[in-house]
Amino acid sequence: MYKLYYAPGTCALASHIALEEVGADYEAVRLDFKANQQNSPDYLAINPKGRVPALVTDRGVLTETPAILTYIAQTFRDAKLAPSDDPFALAQLQAFTSYLCSTVHVAHAHKMRGYRWATEDSSFADMKRMVPKSVGAGFALIERDMLRGPWVMGESYTICDPYLFTIGQWLDGDGVDLAALPKVMAHRKRMLERPAVRKVVEEEKV
Amino acid sequence: MYKLYYAPGTCALASHIALEEVGADYEAVRLDFKANQQNSPDYLAINPKGRVPALVTDRGVLTETPAILTYIAQTFRDAKLAPSDDPFALAQLQAFTSYLCSTVHVAHAHKMRGYRWATEDSSFADMKRMVPKSVGAGFALIERDMLRGPWVMGESYTICDPYLFTIGQWLDGDGVDLAALPKVMAHRKRMLERPAVRKVVEEEKV
Repeated sequence: MYKLYYAPGTCALASHIALEEVGADYEAVRLDFKANQQNSPDYLAINPKGRVPALVTDRGVLTETPAILTYIAQTFRDAKLAPSDDPFALAQLQAFTSYLCSTVHVAHAHKMRGYRWATEDSSFADMKRMVPKSVGAGFALIERDMLRGPWVMGESYTICDPYLFTIGQWLDGDGVDLAALPKVMAHRKRMLERPAVRKVVEEEKV
Repeated sequence: MYKLYYAPGTCALASHIALEEVGADYEAVRLDFKANQQNSPDYLAINPKGRVPALVTDRGVLTETPAILTYIAQTFRDAKLAPSDDPFALAQLQAFTSYLCSTVHVAHAHKMRGYRWATEDSSFADMKRMVPKSVGAGFALIERDMLRGPWVMGESYTICDPYLFTIGQWLDGDGVDLAALPKVMAHRKRMLERPAVRKVVEEEKV
């Protein structure tokens, strides 16, 4: 049985959805970020990075959403959540998840986690003001170039889709103009029609 | 034949080394960042993100270092640069490349690319001051938890190694205390003993 450590409102939602989609036998454990549980000695022993998600398997702990998603897709091959037999198509998929991880999520993180890169209140305020623009720019490229439709990779639903949905959940709070992202909004609506997505979104409600 | 777009001093070095290690038939094309060539209309047509690396293949363009590295390893399987038949081991490898991409490289990027997330000179100065600490913390975890030795994944040389070497090239300029990273420094020395690494480092010299 897998154990997934998550917290509501985080990128762990993507891996949580993926586990549900493949019908994995898993337990989802909620951390309380308000109580800084991710930095408790117990949790740091599991994930020294003090972040979610962390996926506990019988071979050890996995971290980093792009890696966990690919692991789930390759372990539950029959669910066909990644084109594992085609290195080029897999690389296109992984370019998308890497972009979400290191560009779009990072832009969003400057809203509440500016202390990772700066120390002054004026810097935090400056960063917060720019989030609608930086996240908006990231999603503009997704809307224009990356989201083929109906799913990210086109006809096939893949691990890209829970991840796009997850990061997209933050758009409203990030102050991005949703009217400029019709394909992303249609994707969100399509995701919410999936039973696995609805179940996990409900479970992660605060 | 592959075409790799790179610029000296960037993370493209990792993919460049990997192509050389596997004996791929490739051409390396240098972009002039001082002339903002990465944002020229010609290059944006190739990579709308205006970044390096970009790898042109006969099936299309790949971006994002973690995706390109895995693609190279899976396309040139005989070089054994990734444990492609073991989803857990591959996920551990990809957790490492994802960490470099979205945590360590991002920390470094706040030194010269703060304008991605802020607008004020005082913010840029604040971010610059924190780089030794944020990059140092990223490498402290690598030194303590991730670099098994002699290579990142242990006995096997993988795509993690050119990538660690590449990000590690910036440590000196980032003001990190190298004496605190003996394993990382030994890894750098070991990398520079490899003909492929020496050849590419020489080729990328300014």
